Formats: sequence, C-alpha cells, structure tokens
Amino acid sequence: MANLRVNQDRLWKSLMDMARIGATEKGGVCRLALTELDRESRDLFGAWCRDAGCGVTVDQFGNIFARRPGRDDTLAPVMTGSHLDSQPTGGKFDGAYGVLAGLEVLRTLNDADYQTEVPIEVVVWTNEEGSRFSPPMIGSGVFAGLFDLDYARGRVDADGRSQGEALEAIGYAGEAAVGGRAVGAYFEAHIEQGPILEAEDKVIGAVTGAQGQRWYSVVVSGEEAHAGTTPMPRRKDALLGAARLVAEVNRIALAHAPHACGTVGVLRSSPNSRNVIPGSVELTVDLRHPDDRKLSVLDGELRRGVQAIADEVGLEIGIEQDYDTVAVPFDDVCVEAVRNAASDCGYTHRDIISGAGHDAVNISRVAPTGMIFIPCEDGVSHNERENARSDHIAAGCNVLLDAMVRMADRR
Amino acid sequence: MANLRVNQDRLWKSLMDMARIGATEKGGVCRLALTELDRESRDLFGAWCRDAGCGVTVDQFGNIFARRPGRDDTLAPVMTGSHLDSQPTGGKFDGAYGVLAGLEVLRTLNDADYQTEVPIEVVVWTNEEGSRFSPPMIGSGVFAGLFDLDYARGRVDADGRSQGEALEAIGYAGEAAVGGRAVGAYFEAHIEQGPILEAEDKVIGAVTGAQGQRWYSVVVSGEEAHAGTTPMPRRKDALLGAARLVAEVNRIALAHAPHACGTVGVLRSSPNSRNVIPGSVELTVDLRHPDDRKLSVLDGELRRGVQAIADEVGLEIGIEQDYDTVAVPFDDVCVEAVRNAASDCGYTHRDIISGAGHDAVNISRVAPTGMIFIPCEDGVSHNERENARSDHIAAGCNVLLDAMVRMADRR
Repeated sequence: MANLRVNQDRLWKSLMDMARIGATEKGGVCRLALTELDRESRDLFGAWCRDAGCGVTVDQFGNIFARRPGRDDTLAPVMTGSHLDSQPTGGKFDGAYGVLAGLEVLRTLNDADYQTEVPIEVVVWTNEEGSRFSPPMIGSGVFAGLFDLDYARGRVDADGRSQGEALEAIGYAGEAAVGGRAVGAYFEAHIEQGPILEAEDKVIGAVTGAQGQRWYSVVVSGEEAHAGTTPMPRRKDALLGAARLVAEVNRIALAHAPHACGTVGVLRSSPNSRNVIPGSVELTVDLRHPDDRKLSVLDGELRRGVQAIADEVGLEIGIEQDYDTVAVPFDDVCVEAVRNAASDCGYTHRDIISGAGHDAVNISRVAPTGMIFIPCEDGVSHNERENARSDHIAAGCNVLLDAMVRMADRR
Repeated sequence: MANLRVNQDRLWKSLMDMARIGATEKGGVCRLALTELDRESRDLFGAWCRDAGCGVTVDQFGNIFARRPGRDDTLAPVMTGSHLDSQPTGGKFDGAYGVLAGLEVLRTLNDADYQTEVPIEVVVWTNEEGSRFSPPMIGSGVFAGLFDLDYARGRVDADGRSQGEALEAIGYAGEAAVGGRAVGAYFEAHIEQGPILEAEDKVIGAVTGAQGQRWYSVVVSGEEAHAGTTPMPRRKDALLGAARLVAEVNRIALAHAPHACGTVGVLRSSPNSRNVIPGSVELTVDLRHPDDRKLSVLDGELRRGVQAIADEVGLEIGIEQDYDTVAVPFDDVCVEAVRNAASDCGYTHRDIISGAGHDAVNISRVAPTGMIFIPCEDGVSHNERENARSDHIAAGCNVLLDAMVRMADRR
C-alpha cells in the first residue's frame, strides 16, 4: 500500500474536463445547483464511475453514491466526496476537487487491483453552495438529519421553482432514502479558500474542525440633519456610531487572537448624501471561533460594545442574531489519519481550522469525519480566478487515498 | 417709522398661496427650476408686485427685479430677495420666505404710504437649489460675476435640455443685462435650516457670514477576502480604514469647536456581502469653518489623518478635493442693522453663522450684504415637513423691513 500513488495528470484532466461544463469567459465556472449544467456534470461523473466498475445510487434528494465493493461488503464504507454545483462566478476547484479526487482514488485502487477491507464510496452532495436555493449544504444536511426532505424539496429559487421540481426536471430525484446509510468514516478534500497554507508554504492542512459562526444584523438610528448647519455637539450621526462599531468588532477579534474572526461585511448608510448627516445605518457582523464557549465571550463583548457606543454617541442601536452554527471538532482518529498520511507521503503539513462551511461539517454529525486542505492561489475562492497547483492537487489526493485505505483496512 | 409693522396674516397667506404651486401630498413643495411650475410661481410673484405698483424687470438669466421707487430714484436701491425654486421634496419656506417677505415689505410701505430715500427692490434669483441644473445659486452667481452667462445657459439637466432653452421655454429669458445693476445694500430673510435658534429659544439670527466649505472624495482600497478563512493579521479591510477615517473627521471637527463642522455623508462599501471582507470603500468628507485659515488647518489634519490610517491598516487611501467655497464675512453695517432692527422690534436675537449656501453669499461679492434667520421646526429643511411659526415668519419680516428702511433712509 505504501507505493500507491494517484495519477497527477489524469486527475488534472478530469478537473479540466469537468470545468468545461458551465465554463465562463474569465476561466471560472457557473454551474448552479440542479440546472441543466449541473445535470451534465452529474451525468459525466456517473459515467466515469460506471467506467471504473462502480455501482451508482441516487437518493431522493439527488445525492449520488458511487460504490467500490470491499472484501467484506457488509461493512460500513469509507466515504469521500464533495459537490459539483458552483457559485454564479465560481472557480474550477471548489467542490469539484473533492469529488474528482474521490474518483481518482477509485481509479488508482483499480489500477493497482487493490481490494480494501470495507467498501469505498464517492458521493456528490446536492446544492452545497446555496446560491440558487437557500440554505447551503442542504444535500448533506438532509442526509445528516438536519433538514426534513419535504422542507428541502419545498425551498424555491428566485423564479419560484421548488428544489423538488428542479430535481425531477433534471432526472435526479432518485429512489433511495436520504440518510440512514451507514458511513464508517468520511473524508473530504478541498482547497483551503484561505491564505494560510500558501503563506506558510505548507502542502497539506489537516483540518481539526470547523469554526462556529454567529451572524448579526445591526441597525443604528440617529438623526438626519444638515451637514453645514448642525453644530457637532448636537449631532446624532448614525455613521459615526457605525464606524465606532466597525472598529470595536475588529478590536474584539484581535483581542481573541489567533483563532477569532470578526467582520463587518455589509454597511449601508442612509440617506447617503454629501451634505446630510447620516440618519441611519444598517450593517452586519460576522463572528467566528473554533470554540463555542469563546464565541459566547465574543458575543457578550459585542453586545456590551454596542450599548457603550449607543450611549456615547447618543444613538439607538438594535442588534439581532440571525444565524449561527456551532463549532464542530472533527474526529480525532480521522484527523490523525490525515496527519499520518501526509507524513508518510512526505508532504509538509499543519493543523488548520476550516473557516468556511463544508458538507463534511454536516456529515460529522453522523460519522467520524476528517478534511484535507490544499493551498489555493492567493487564498482566493468563490471567484473565477480561483486556482490551485497541479502538484498540490495530486498531493491532497495522495493523502486522501492513504487516509481512506488506512481507515478501510484497519481492524 | 418705529411704528411700521408687517401684516402677519397677509404674509402667511402669500406663503400658503405660493405653496399651492407644486404642492406635494406630504405638505411640501416640488418646484424645480425653470419648469412650468416655476413659471407659475414667477407669474404670481410678478402679478402681486405689479398690483403693489412696482415696475418688474427680467434679466437675460431670468432673475426678476420688482422696484418701488425712492424719493431720489437715481440712488442705488436697497434690495432683498431669495428664490422660488425648490428641492424635489422641498418645503414651503426655503427661498419662498425671503421673496414673499420682500413683497410684504413693499405692501407694508404702500399701506403706510412711506417713501424711502432710495428705491427698494425685491429680487427672485434663478435656480438657487441646483437640483435640476447644477451648480446651485447660479442666477445670483452670474449676477455677481462668478459665472459667465454663456456657461450658465449651457448647463443641461438630466434630459440634456440646456438652462438657456428652459429659460426661453417658460418665457423668462429677459432683455436686461445680468449684473452691473447698482445695489446699495442686500438683505435676505431665510429659515435657519438648522437647530440653533430653536434650541436657544431665539427669534432672530443676525447672520455674520457664511462658512467656507471643502468637499473631498476619498477612495479606500484594501483586499477582498473570505471573512471565515482570512486571519485578522492578514486582512486589508477597507471598511476598517473607512471607519477610522469617519472617527478621525469627527475628532478633527470637535477639536476645532465651536465653529468647525466635519461630516462623512456618503459611504459605499464594496462588495457589501456578509461574509466577504470589504475590498474598497468610497466616501465623502465635508469640512466647514467660517474662517478660511482655520479651514486650511482642518484640511492639513484631514490629509495627515488619511495617511496615518492608510499606513496603520495597510491600505491605499486616495483623497481628492472636488469643491470648495471660501468663507464669506457679511458687511458690518448690514449685520449691525439687523441686530439693531431686532432689538428695536423687541425680539430675542443672537449672531449666527450660515452653514448652508445662499444667494446672499454670492451677492456679498458685489454689495454690502446681511441676512436674517428665523427658527424652523426641529431645524429641518430640504424636506417636505419643513415648517416655521407664523409669528417667527412675521418677526423676521419686521426685522427685514426695519433694516431695509434704516439703510434706505440713512445719509
């Protein structure tokens, strides 16, 4: 087994062939969930898997499972996968890499005529991005029991078309029940979508878990007034309060270095006129930390900061939390398998926290889970210029292969 | 002369009659410059002035002069006036008050059969607001020699129609030359458009001058990145830099209390997405001070603040000054005439600086000038809910009458 290595060129070619489906002029991909282009990509994946001798099953929410039998086919499989849908101006690697790395694992095992103890499965999860139908990661979410199938089928796109109708239209409303399928272990390979590995010149990130997130909507209410005739002490400048809050969010996140993140991503000022003191501002706050208890501390500091700024500037500031996900630690055994695989293959590696959401975060609720990150250029993702090096792509796939076989063959 | 008092009810009725032209549902006025509604308001004013026995002259840029002869009609007149055009969602008093207060002065002098030594003139300046055709205050600007007539006629609205064409379409491109008309003194009555008089319960503001203004456009450039995967120390958050600058503008203005004003009125963040660190922000800065040397000090502090923030947060910040007006002190004799008139009439008063632009600021370049402010409700203007008390309206008009007669009869 120590000699098994994936075929770098074949994996790259699969990625480039897949990237033709929905290719954009700027070198990216637009392949929204459950569109005709999504169907094409699914069909191509299915054909490749059948060519590789796998049985292919589609569940009622369109999740696709390609299975390579194990020596004892009654045992729970070791599974890998990701998604084939993309953002409207997405890249070639987000999602597709995890799926096609799984396919390359199957092909490499075939080439070597290597039989694993337990079955190997490669999965394509439906609608990870959430761009056409909200929320994101819903295929893995239904599988993991986080959403009802009926709820998921009923979600509509901007044209009022339901996800259930869209599944049927592309012929991917299958017959298998969603979930309840035994999974011995789950791995997902993915580009980092951040700058850390590239900056530290590391090839592999052994993902120890995913950050918890809390999203807030904030409304700052002051008083619109003339910029030339209203003396400074009489002002209730909503933008001044908002600016203080942007600085406070930054201060809080820095005070909880190195893991905390705090971002004001949206800020809308009204009436947004040169010579009018802003009367109201809407903004969003995004707080993340890999430890939920620490996230609660950040939450407390944010709320106290909001109150202090409101009192100091003479404003009303309303804050509502409108989304949260708990921090998820991945399975110790799976994470250690990734570290060991990276070491065995001779790749530099480090532990890393996932800042973005992934299907693996949902699957970790129902199966021991690990993830493998590889560097991406400038840390850029969800962008047509998303890019990754072919040798890194192969390295991540070798680690995936090694970790999966390690788990599939252990007693 | 001490017994001359204007007719409060008649003045109020004139204002309400004028406000019917372009009346909005919410109680405001929409009477854009050189529209048919503007023509109606001009026609009404002209008819009222002719009924009051005045000769009416229109110059080539549509400025209207109604003249009540003096005992020595060869002497330069004492003039008052303002404008009849409004903002798209303007109020009943901004501009119209100054014009109709002038009319009420004419009528009161007629009722008393009072002959002033020099002529009295009431003027309507074309396009003070600048809403339809930019820049604002252009009628008084051409009169004062700040703009060429050809330049002013050539300015176009959003539909590509020139101001010259619009003047001709409503029949107000007159024959008299613009400017070169002798003006012995100019007064303008106006609502304060700010909160100071109301807050201090003063009836009259003797305006000592107008603030200088400098307007800047600022572009903050950082780096768009994922809010979950980009560690805090690696960020180049354009919104953080912008927020620091908002706070710095506030600090600078407060440091130069009580006269300095500093405002960030416009702020646009991009891409304005919840989980993306803002990559660029555009904002505007508006600095004002009644002393130009102080304004230059504010300018220097702003530019040093911009550089310090750029260095500290790791951003590029570009700043361009795109508009300025110099601070204008009004004429000592005219200002003192207003103070004395207010005292004689028994009104509480205080000196005040004009934060907004007015036709009087332009006319002060060519004639001794003063202004009279009265309180407006909540300091609100450029708004359909702009409001002022009838007794304050009459008080300002009594002060105008007293000051004008004082100037017209002095030797």
